[in-house]
Amino acid sequence: MLYFCIRRETEPEPDMTARTPKHTDKIPEPTLRRLPWYLSNAKLMKDKGEKYVSSTQISKQINIDASQIAKDLSFVDISGRTRVGYEIDSLIRVLEDFLGFTNLHEAYLFGVGSLGAALLCDSGLAHFGLKIVGAFDVRPEVVGTTINGVPVYHTDEFEEKMKSGGVNIGVLTVPINIAQDITDKMVAGGIKAVWNFTPFRIRVPEHIVVQNTSLYAHLAVMFNRLNEI
Amino acid sequence: MLYFCIRRETEPEPDMTARTPKHTDKIPEPTLRRLPWYLSNAKLMKDKGEKYVSSTQISKQINIDASQIAKDLSFVDISGRTRVGYEIDSLIRVLEDFLGFTNLHEAYLFGVGSLGAALLCDSGLAHFGLKIVGAFDVRPEVVGTTINGVPVYHTDEFEEKMKSGGVNIGVLTVPINIAQDITDKMVAGGIKAVWNFTPFRIRVPEHIVVQNTSLYAHLAVMFNRLNEI
Repeated sequence: MLYFCIRRETEPEPDMTARTPKHTDKIPEPTLRRLPWYLSNAKLMKDKGEKYVSSTQISKQINIDASQIAKDLSFVDISGRTRVGYEIDSLIRVLEDFLGFTNLHEAYLFGVGSLGAALLCDSGLAHFGLKIVGAFDVRPEVVGTTINGVPVYHTDEFEEKMKSGGVNIGVLTVPINIAQDITDKMVAGGIKAVWNFTPFRIRVPEHIVVQNTSLYAHLAVMFNRLNEI
Repeated sequence: MLYFCIRRETEPEPDMTARTPKHTDKIPEPTLRRLPWYLSNAKLMKDKGEKYVSSTQISKQINIDASQIAKDLSFVDISGRTRVGYEIDSLIRVLEDFLGFTNLHEAYLFGVGSLGAALLCDSGLAHFGLKIVGAFDVRPEVVGTTINGVPVYHTDEFEEKMKSGGVNIGVLTVPINIAQDITDKMVAGGIKAVWNFTPFRIRVPEHIVVQNTSLYAHLAVMFNRLNEI
């Protein structure tokens, strides 16, 4: 059965200005996860016509200590002016660069099931630096099709496709019983980072980056907290 | 422009056996987030024909201390047998119940953009207890349509729809500039838990549950770690 997905109309292309990421000390993950909040806050302030924003102002908006915000922002290449704060345009540009949203990172997706197909439909990821350039599955009904412009190949073609280079991110949306096998295949093929959407805890060699996004774990937390009200 | 999303064929209906969640001590969020790993591991072991699984076996599979696993599982109503471990069928049933995956929780989705429409296409969420029963937007091109069986209403209709009851979860996939307004509207209408997919840090009254799932923050972490390799 086929369903429609609606694409947002005439979205601007992501800014392709290439910037080389600076080498920095390893930034803590909690800081990295907070930076997008500051970014979205700065964008809102800009929309309201503001030119400068201070950590105190951001703090009031998003309920995080101003000292924490200043500390987090010390990891990125921006300095605020006393009493005035950060210049908003610079803050937005520097944060977007730092977070990797201004460079397009190409990725392959594995497993064109319900969630995989949904992610292929989400063109919004490109605005945050991720472009899925191909997908892999084994089921005849999806192999050879194109979803939202992304071609679906047979999993056996993966090794060959990797030879053309440029892709080092794999998005994992396969059933749990093959999650580890497909991960091993990705790593063997040269994938350097796995965005794992399965509720399975995959094992990878030390140098491989794994980012777990289990929607189901988040649901579990939400349901549990709801029951406590 | 319209694109196809493919639905997984003939998926079984989620188990609708209603079980009343037991009142327990507040379980730590890290534990809640690990439980789905144990669940998927138990399902795999069951597929392999196993009848029992010990925390030591799970530990080897997913690289978490056996003592941590035993501690985590002490929050749910199951006890293992010495030398044998947990009975797998019971473990799966108890975990699924505990995590809320066996009860369908109805939800409304706000913001039928790229990500919102993608989530509507993901029928897989129903297998983990979430059923999106309606969506809200203001754009004429989506209001009145149906995506993957889910009707899209005008945001102004939300208050009226809430009167029929049964929905206490809101999925937030709107642009950041209206994220707070829509959240306020949800809460005023009676929503008790907000699943926030925006990169905006929303503010809610104390008794409202918020679960943040910022795909963009996860991307940022992944890109940053990739640059360090």
